[in-house]
Amino acid sequence: MTEQLHVEQIGHGPLTGGLSPDEFKLAFRNHPAGVAVITADAGEGPVALTATSVFSVSAEPPILVFSISDQSSSTPTIARSATVVVHLIDAEHLDIAKLGATSGIDRFADTSIWARLPTGEPYFTGVKQWIRGEVIDQLRAGTSTVIAVHALEAKLTGDAVPLVYHSRTWHQLGDHSVIPAP
Amino acid sequence: MTEQLHVEQIGHGPLTGGLSPDEFKLAFRNHPAGVAVITADAGEGPVALTATSVFSVSAEPPILVFSISDQSSSTPTIARSATVVVHLIDAEHLDIAKLGATSGIDRFADTSIWARLPTGEPYFTGVKQWIRGEVIDQLRAGTSTVIAVHALEAKLTGDAVPLVYHSRTWHQLGDHSVIPAP
Repeated sequence: MTEQLHVEQIGHGPLTGGLSPDEFKLAFRNHPAGVAVITADAGEGPVALTATSVFSVSAEPPILVFSISDQSSSTPTIARSATVVVHLIDAEHLDIAKLGATSGIDRFADTSIWARLPTGEPYFTGVKQWIRGEVIDQLRAGTSTVIAVHALEAKLTGDAVPLVYHSRTWHQLGDHSVIPAP
Repeated sequence: MTEQLHVEQIGHGPLTGGLSPDEFKLAFRNHPAGVAVITADAGEGPVALTATSVFSVSAEPPILVFSISDQSSSTPTIARSATVVVHLIDAEHLDIAKLGATSGIDRFADTSIWARLPTGEPYFTGVKQWIRGEVIDQLRAGTSTVIAVHALEAKLTGDAVPLVYHSRTWHQLGDHSVIPAP
């Protein structure tokens, strides 16, 4: 059944009906998310984009996924890259999240905030936590592509203040936001 | 390149190397997420599970994705269901999120909290916001499956207190968590 739908609707024809774009966006406006900045270089220079669509799907093997919209200028490069760096952004590095979400600028103009890993990928050096991985699969979904990444290497720290994006507003988590046990 | 990796690594052989499961889990412990409860019935009774891996990938057509682990008892049913209900859980309905995350219980024992939609799917009637959709594609990733859903119908409200899961702790967003503009 699923395969059949895949062939008929995603592979060879448009999905019709369902929620309007406005209804759908309204629904997800109330779904908070962590924030990531993804960087890559497919051989033609570094690209970066901010995503609120990163999650882990499997710990063994370690695999994460994220989605990239056809509307982002960085998408063609990321879709062609063999490897990417996924920065998990904390509240202290909100400026990097904003940088990756701003259109029409050179996101790598400030050469003091980024470098290249020994393996060649561009990355933002100040970010406390990132994962470097290999793109292993892609799934087309409407006007976006879901990318699956095998995590190869990471920089990890435990002391970051978590950053959340919700309804076009940036939030930080802390003792103030914890729901007390009943 | 990606297709080749797909065939060699996901389709026909194990991914090797990369982060250990503990390293990978540690990295994502610092990545906050919104909370959803997914319900379905493939014809053998209702199932529910709590997921922190739901995101929208496309507004037109309206498509969301989530991942389900092979370890969850509800996964085989959800993977075989033609349609699902994705409840976007607010802080007031944390009990439903906990219900969907508790193993070894009958999640539908309390018949006062759920019903069936006219189209047949089980859903939790008190939850403020949910999306009913058709499963249109699946992507295997390690020990999980990423499910793509075409959103057909939704109940929407604007006044929910956003719920976030982070590092094994439940948080709520509000004025207290907003990061002030610089």
